[in-house]
Amino acid sequence: GFAKVDTQRKARNGYPEVIYGEGKNSKQIISIIEDLYTDKRTILATRVSTVKAKDLMLKFPFGVYHEEARCFVINPIKTNSDEYIAVVTAGTSDIDVAEEAAVTAETYGNKVERIYDVGVAGIHRLFANIDVIKNASVIIAIAGMEGALVSVIGGLVDKPVIAVPTSVGYGTNLEGITALFSMLNSCSSGVSVVNIDNGFGAAYNASMINRIKSEVRG
Amino acid sequence: GFAKVDTQRKARNGYPEVIYGEGKNSKQIISIIEDLYTDKRTILATRVSTVKAKDLMLKFPFGVYHEEARCFVINPIKTNSDEYIAVVTAGTSDIDVAEEAAVTAETYGNKVERIYDVGVAGIHRLFANIDVIKNASVIIAIAGMEGALVSVIGGLVDKPVIAVPTSVGYGTNLEGITALFSMLNSCSSGVSVVNIDNGFGAAYNASMINRIKSEVRG
Amino acid sequence: GFAKVDTQRKARNGYPEVIYGEGKNSKQIISIIEDLYTDKRTILATRVSTVKAKDLMLKFPFGVYHEEARCFVINPIKTNSDEYIAVVTAGTSDIDVAEEAAVTAETYGNKVERIYDVGVAGIHRLFANIDVIKNASVIIAIAGMEGALVSVIGGLVDKPVIAVPTSVGYGTNLEGITALFSMLNSCSSGVSVVNIDNGFGAAYNASMINRIKSEVRG
Amino acid sequence: GFAKVDTQRKARNGYPEVIYGEGKNSKQIISIIEDLYTDKRTILATRVSTVKAKDLMLKFPFGVYHEEARCFVINPIKTNSDEYIAVVTAGTSDIDVAEEAAVTAETYGNKVERIYDVGVAGIHRLFANIDVIKNASVIIAIAGMEGALVSVIGGLVDKPVIAVPTSVGYGTNLEGITALFSMLNSCSSGVSVVNIDNGFGAAYNASMINRIKSEVRG
Amino acid sequence: GFAKVDTQRKARNGYPEVIYGEGKNSKQIISIIEDLYTDKRTILATRVSTVKAKDLMLKFPFGVYHEEARCFVINPIKTNSDEYIAVVTAGTSDIDVAEEAAVTAETYGNKVERIYDVGVAGIHRLFANIDVIKNASVIIAIAGMEGALVSVIGGLVDKPVIAVPTSVGYGTNLEGITALFSMLNSCSSGVSVVNIDNGFGAAYNASMINRIKSEVRG
Amino acid sequence: GFAKVDTQRKARNGYPEVIYGEGKNSKQIISIIEDLYTDKRTILATRVSTVKAKDLMLKFPFGVYHEEARCFVINPIKTNSDEYIAVVTAGTSDIDVAEEAAVTAETYGNKVERIYDVGVAGIHRLFANIDVIKNASVIIAIAGMEGALVSVIGGLVDKPVIAVPTSVGYGTNLEGITALFSMLNSCSSGVSVVNIDNGFGAAYNASMINRIKSEVRG
Amino acid sequence: GFAKVDTQRKARNGYPEVIYGEGKNSKQIISIIEDLYTDKRTILATRVSTVKAKDLMLKFPFGVYHEEARCFVINPIKTNSDEYIAVVTAGTSDIDVAEEAAVTAETYGNKVERIYDVGVAGIHRLFANIDVIKNASVIIAIAGMEGALVSVIGGLVDKPVIAVPTSVGYGTNLEGITALFSMLNSCSSGVSVVNIDNGFGAAYNASMINRIKSEVRG
Amino acid sequence: GFAKVDTQRKARNGYPEVIYGEGKNSKQIISIIEDLYTDKRTILATRVSTVKAKDLMLKFPFGVYHEEARCFVINPIKTNSDEYIAVVTAGTSDIDVAEEAAVTAETYGNKVERIYDVGVAGIHRLFANIDVIKNASVIIAIAGMEGALVSVIGGLVDKPVIAVPTSVGYGTNLEGITALFSMLNSCSSGVSVVNIDNGFGAAYNASMINRIKSEVRG
Ligand SMILES: Nc1ncnc2c1ncn2[C@@H]1O[C@H](COP(=O)(O)O)[C@@H](O)[C@H]1O
Ligand SMILES: Nc1ncnc2c1ncn2[C@@H]1O[C@H](COP(=O)(O)O)[C@@H](O)[C@H]1O
Ligand SMILES: Nc1ncnc2c1ncn2[C@@H]1O[C@H](COP(=O)(O)O)[C@@H](O)[C@H]1O
Ligand SMILES: Nc1ncnc2c1ncn2[C@@H]1O[C@H](COP(=O)(O)O)[C@@H](O)[C@H]1O
Ligand SMILES: [Mg+2]
Ligand SMILES: [Mg+2]
Ligand SMILES: [Mg+2]
Ligand SMILES: [Mg+2]
Ligand SMILES: [Mg+2]
Ligand SMILES: [Mg+2]
Ligand SMILES: [Mg+2]
Ligand SMILES: [Mg+2]
Repeated sequence: GFAKVDTQRKARNGYPEVIYGEGKNSKQIISIIEDLYTDKRTILATRVSTVKAKDLMLKFPFGVYHEEARCFVINPIKTNSDEYIAVVTAGTSDIDVAEEAAVTAETYGNKVERIYDVGVAGIHRLFANIDVIKNASVIIAIAGMEGALVSVIGGLVDKPVIAVPTSVGYGTNLEGITALFSMLNSCSSGVSVVNIDNGFGAAYNASMINRIKSEVRG
Repeated sequence: GFAKVDTQRKARNGYPEVIYGEGKNSKQIISIIEDLYTDKRTILATRVSTVKAKDLMLKFPFGVYHEEARCFVINPIKTNSDEYIAVVTAGTSDIDVAEEAAVTAETYGNKVERIYDVGVAGIHRLFANIDVIKNASVIIAIAGMEGALVSVIGGLVDKPVIAVPTSVGYGTNLEGITALFSMLNSCSSGVSVVNIDNGFGAAYNASMINRIKSEVRG
Repeated sequence: GFAKVDTQRKARNGYPEVIYGEGKNSKQIISIIEDLYTDKRTILATRVSTVKAKDLMLKFPFGVYHEEARCFVINPIKTNSDEYIAVVTAGTSDIDVAEEAAVTAETYGNKVERIYDVGVAGIHRLFANIDVIKNASVIIAIAGMEGALVSVIGGLVDKPVIAVPTSVGYGTNLEGITALFSMLNSCSSGVSVVNIDNGFGAAYNASMINRIKSEVRG
Repeated sequence: GFAKVDTQRKARNGYPEVIYGEGKNSKQIISIIEDLYTDKRTILATRVSTVKAKDLMLKFPFGVYHEEARCFVINPIKTNSDEYIAVVTAGTSDIDVAEEAAVTAETYGNKVERIYDVGVAGIHRLFANIDVIKNASVIIAIAGMEGALVSVIGGLVDKPVIAVPTSVGYGTNLEGITALFSMLNSCSSGVSVVNIDNGFGAAYNASMINRIKSEVRG
Repeated sequence: GFAKVDTQRKARNGYPEVIYGEGKNSKQIISIIEDLYTDKRTILATRVSTVKAKDLMLKFPFGVYHEEARCFVINPIKTNSDEYIAVVTAGTSDIDVAEEAAVTAETYGNKVERIYDVGVAGIHRLFANIDVIKNASVIIAIAGMEGALVSVIGGLVDKPVIAVPTSVGYGTNLEGITALFSMLNSCSSGVSVVNIDNGFGAAYNASMINRIKSEVRG
Repeated sequence: GFAKVDTQRKARNGYPEVIYGEGKNSKQIISIIEDLYTDKRTILATRVSTVKAKDLMLKFPFGVYHEEARCFVINPIKTNSDEYIAVVTAGTSDIDVAEEAAVTAETYGNKVERIYDVGVAGIHRLFANIDVIKNASVIIAIAGMEGALVSVIGGLVDKPVIAVPTSVGYGTNLEGITALFSMLNSCSSGVSVVNIDNGFGAAYNASMINRIKSEVRG
Repeated sequence: GFAKVDTQRKARNGYPEVIYGEGKNSKQIISIIEDLYTDKRTILATRVSTVKAKDLMLKFPFGVYHEEARCFVINPIKTNSDEYIAVVTAGTSDIDVAEEAAVTAETYGNKVERIYDVGVAGIHRLFANIDVIKNASVIIAIAGMEGALVSVIGGLVDKPVIAVPTSVGYGTNLEGITALFSMLNSCSSGVSVVNIDNGFGAAYNASMINRIKSEVRG
Repeated sequence: GFAKVDTQRKARNGYPEVIYGEGKNSKQIISIIEDLYTDKRTILATRVSTVKAKDLMLKFPFGVYHEEARCFVINPIKTNSDEYIAVVTAGTSDIDVAEEAAVTAETYGNKVERIYDVGVAGIHRLFANIDVIKNASVIIAIAGMEGALVSVIGGLVDKPVIAVPTSVGYGTNLEGITALFSMLNSCSSGVSVVNIDNGFGAAYNASMINRIKSEVRG
């Protein structure tokens, strides 16, 4: 094929190669899936539009398409632990990115708790859900605009917080740069950050952390 | 003199012209004060270094120099109302800017309540002080780094919040631009913003708002 | 529903939660309105396109859609004071943003005076309208391009000026950043600023200020 | 004191409050240490210059100053596990930031392995040290300039990589912004990022992850 | 015609004028080709869309359109040397830009070796191809995102590396600026850089270098 | 010497080469003056610090040093026309740049009228001086911060306005970029702009325009 | 009408108000023309698309639409002088902006000489046309990409050069910002600059300068 | 030592490791030189201040310090070919960077021709030196401000041009970013670019190219 598919990735990195669907047409995605496909290998394609998803479903009817998450999945790993990743969003507009994170994490065998729309403009909503957040093994905190939610969560928990800035907002949000810089400057200490709208990357990291805990206690 | 001092400003704007001390030497500041000086006119010079302040004190021994605020004041207006402006900071490093705001407000005859170092990394400190903030007629919220404090306060009060981003931080704080953009993108609604480190401007605005309330109820 | 609607906002902030229509489809907006709706609660949805407005009007025929303002309103508050907010624009292209501000302010029970297209390229137009501006309790000044109007107004009045930069212009206007930075650097003192094109936020602030005056004198 | 020291942080976040020494004078740092000090509490002050360190050593002679790391430490936690954090740098100029990370991690009771000056310009140096990197429970990867080292490591390991961009370089390095953006765009998946030169923050995160593993296997 | 076509360019620069097709319509491109056309002159038009290509093929059926490269070519120069240019990409999404480079180089009479999709996330793919890269007379290295491939190659070869940043990526890739700045900051020394997505420019340079070698050894 | 002094510039450009003193030491400036010097040639060195000026005065005692303007001049051209250039500033802090412009213009034989400190915060000061501005053949308008003065003048006159942004201000003034972009976006039409703090360039342009008028009417 | 048309502009500024067509619909443009229209007044509308032009032509059949320039003109001023403005472009892609400048200048009664596609990549084309450039009373120099043409012209003539950066280019041209900054940094002295793609503004300025010369010698 | 010195670099890259002196103290530089030193190995340390150079000269008296270039050299390679690299600058202020390039090239055994201060403000100076530029095997073109010189040279020669933007200039030069972007957008085709002020990098590249030619014809 036109691509040099990295079939050794699971051995090296713990998870198999993932297909980034943006900018690839259905034919190219299908060709890569065919290169990767084995009975047992977990296959994840992200940034797959509904239009492309139709072509994939025809070709691989045993796969599952998650529309809000824009993810296409074959052979997800079974969850076998009660340790979980909390996926938290500030607003309803951040839910697409959150679903990319949640579906990625579930595909990799993690249990996920979703806590959406608890941004600081109505901070009582966060406090009403704080226990499920505190008890996670790792937290993915997702916010656009000024991203203040991340600092508030960071100040309340003793678990790693992986922050995902989103491009939600207008004017000086600069398509997510403001949320990103905000999060990198968080006055709370336990926060690390991934690229704007990168729900996948956050879940990949969270999964590596949750796995440590799961292996032992799960 | 070399300057066209605006002696009609109080009639037009409610407050007399203010001297911006940055980039002016002692001689120039003194010359402008002499142009402005009358028995009753309130005179305020901001951004006055301790070195320049010594020269001003020699020439105008009846003036007062506020070191942390870097302000030199002659004939401050007497406070005659219980309505007050709350000046809140996220960290201890924001105190200089806060003092510029507090001293400006007091010079203009406002009562001021200072609530410093209550940033969201330890949000219980904010809640311990929330009543004095809620009962102000207007709130000046000052923060560097990611400025999350502003959104949290904005979500808890029904008074105008004037936000001052500070240049406190490093790396992606971009000398205050990140805090500024954060505040302009606040998910809370009642927030307006002034220039980075501009404690003076925030207090000037707050003073115009507090005056309305004071005139009536004070 | 998918959202955690903040039904306690009026108690906390003085005004009920507002729906930001951008990036939500008709179905989602309708679902949130249904969560919020009571006989008396003022409901405001901003950034509602004409297409979405049609769906809303079918569902809530007693609501009103303001096309230029892109606002959908149910149960606006009655105005009961002569104190007013002046909404001023530099050009005709700024009128959409101005209408968002004006309709928001009216929905919250404020009297509004509109003074449009009085930018400094023909400054006699501003002077011809200066009295109605000076007598407002607070001024919303809206401009794109270089935003010079704001500084000129700031220098002529003794009321708070809330500036709204617009994205009107091309080249170095940088989609409103230049107007924004201009306004934050205003050589006039009584100016605070909200996000680019944020007519709603300016009106929200102005409303809190005008209310103080209205309660007393209105 | 002038500060509202957060004495409950260990209960909430797992680690006690840390003093950020930049922009505070010796007197202020000493005053905060006195507020925090108890027989057993671990005290860490970062960004402490050699000049300020002298004052601290006089006052608290039982403390230790780490010069390259610019950290002052009282009561470090004893290490009691063989699980370790790998701290890797691209160049020799990144060592200061690396030491801030390493000393923070050690103060929090972690074992640390240092692998310095293995940047991709001479990639054989990285391969010569790859095993100690692969066997860490978490990796802190530190680089300035273009930060390519992070992507190479990310592609070779199955552990979380926390990347620290440094301000080392000139011209288009933009004081670390280029390394930062590079790392956020890493083509390798398991990478999350902290602020420019923020060795402390990386170690804080790494420590939370290593602790999970240590508790169980250590 | 409307253009002042530079018919003396080959004498001056070694290669005839090239037509930049972006923003020109078919009629304009055809008119310039007609001005340039002689029996022997090599004609190259870049950034030619498939739609415009149809018009060109009708008019000049002896020309060749390279779709992925978006190049239209008449009278390419025959290759007569074994010295070659290596064109290397990090990902599959960089292939369009790579083909612009490869077709340009071939049009100018160079032998080209294509090594695509060997980015550092799976660095074994690069090592599997390192000999053909090392034996080139000059290397064109093409990458988006963080561009780490360039530094790794630069550290392994003793030939000039011409780097082409691509606009592939999202968020902080800033449409190629991050890859560009990364490459300009490469810790490897033998790297020079051309504009984002400028495959043509890289090939033009490489061709001048390869020609020196070819003339002698070819 | 180390420089290739352009002795033919007056023939080509109407004015002889000018020495840019920044980053050159006294010895280098003296060496260039010696290369240029003839009995009649007008010599202008800009950006000359007071320290360097002392060395120049010792060597060329017949020259004149203008301290505020930081210009050193030999053989200025005699003014022989009543047509004049108006040099206008917004604040007192802009005077250094204004003097660079004024002295350059006078050195080139132009009559200059100085109108300083008439910014829009006190716009009555501008109107009090509007006639002398309107009757100039060309206007140099100098302002820092938001640069609003330029648009107001542009809207009131029928002469070319050459705008000079200055680096005066703080925070979002971005060392003059905000004033610059403001001026380039001026809603008034007859404005062109030069580099930040470039009083020299503005005067050079103004001089070419004033000369046309002077030659004829002067 | 919705606009406050500035009917006094000619008295104040020498030229009547101009309509900026961007962002206005045909109805709005027509309404403003009707407000402005008198038998003799010169009416100029810029940035008028071909679609809107059709509506204007129907309503005002005596007007003229210049398609490349996107300008609609009624009652242009007759040219009555041999003094002329030179409009020079670097490439063929800059011609639209050049035509906006040329048509504006002609509408205001100036003679115009067009010299297009003489950029420095083939500098002999510039030298072949240098005399007509040198003999102009003022030069409008238009370029995208790196804008080098402007500095070369500036170094060869003794007339004011008004530079117009265009948004032509890709990657690091940043939609014209690079050409703009290039021109503001020109090593040649007689250059002033207007906004990106602002052919109109350049012509307005040039016209004021050419008029001085024309009045006298024309 | 603290550094992992890359002693295999010559075998891999053709030239031995180079010491970047910025941010290293004398002791560190000396320690690295001692690690690298052999009788025959060429040692080059760049960015060495005069103060550090004194320490190096004491320790290695057989080394040579080039002050303008800020380079310290031991065992330079003998030149044995007439093929040469042309090093060209726009202004006198660019000479430091040019010398870094020239000394690096000479240290690597290349013949160098220096052509300084021939910028386009006085373009006749360039034409007076064009033959020595045209006959070089590769050209290093160095310029600050707007960098126009690079495009002009690129349009006149048939050799690779390696452009070095310098940080010379003020205001919108943005410490070299404007020159850099200008050069990347050059309308001439044979130009590639290195980092701002990176004379070393340009020479390293040029040397690899010149070597090809020298080996054969030299
Ligand atoms: N700290 C400050 N920050 C911003 N503006 C200030 C400050 N202090 C004074 N000003 C404004 O600067 C003006 C004086 O500027 P100047 O004429 O340059 O002294 C005053 O009228 C104030 O409006
Ligand atoms: N893909 C490309 N990227 C950058 N420059 C190009 C490209 N294709 C052609 N050129 C240059 O653009 C010039 C033609 O510009 P134009 O006169 O606008 O057609 C040619 O002489 C080439 O130097
Ligand atoms: N203050 C100034 N700002 C901008 N350009 C200047 C200034 N003074 C002199 N110049 C220009 O800089 C050129 C001299 O540069 P240089 O050869 O580096 O001395 C002169 O020919 C002028 O065109
Ligand atoms: N002036 C310079 N500019 C850019 N890179 C340089 C310079 N001098 C040396 N280098 C590179 O920096 C590397 C040494 O970096 P370090 O290990 O930090 O001393 C060398 O291998 C060179 O490739
Ligand atoms: Mg919500
Ligand atoms: Mg604190
Ligand atoms: Mg108008
Ligand atoms: Mg090293
Ligand atoms: Mg791939
Ligand atoms: Mg003043
Ligand atoms: Mg052309
Ligand atoms: Mg020179």
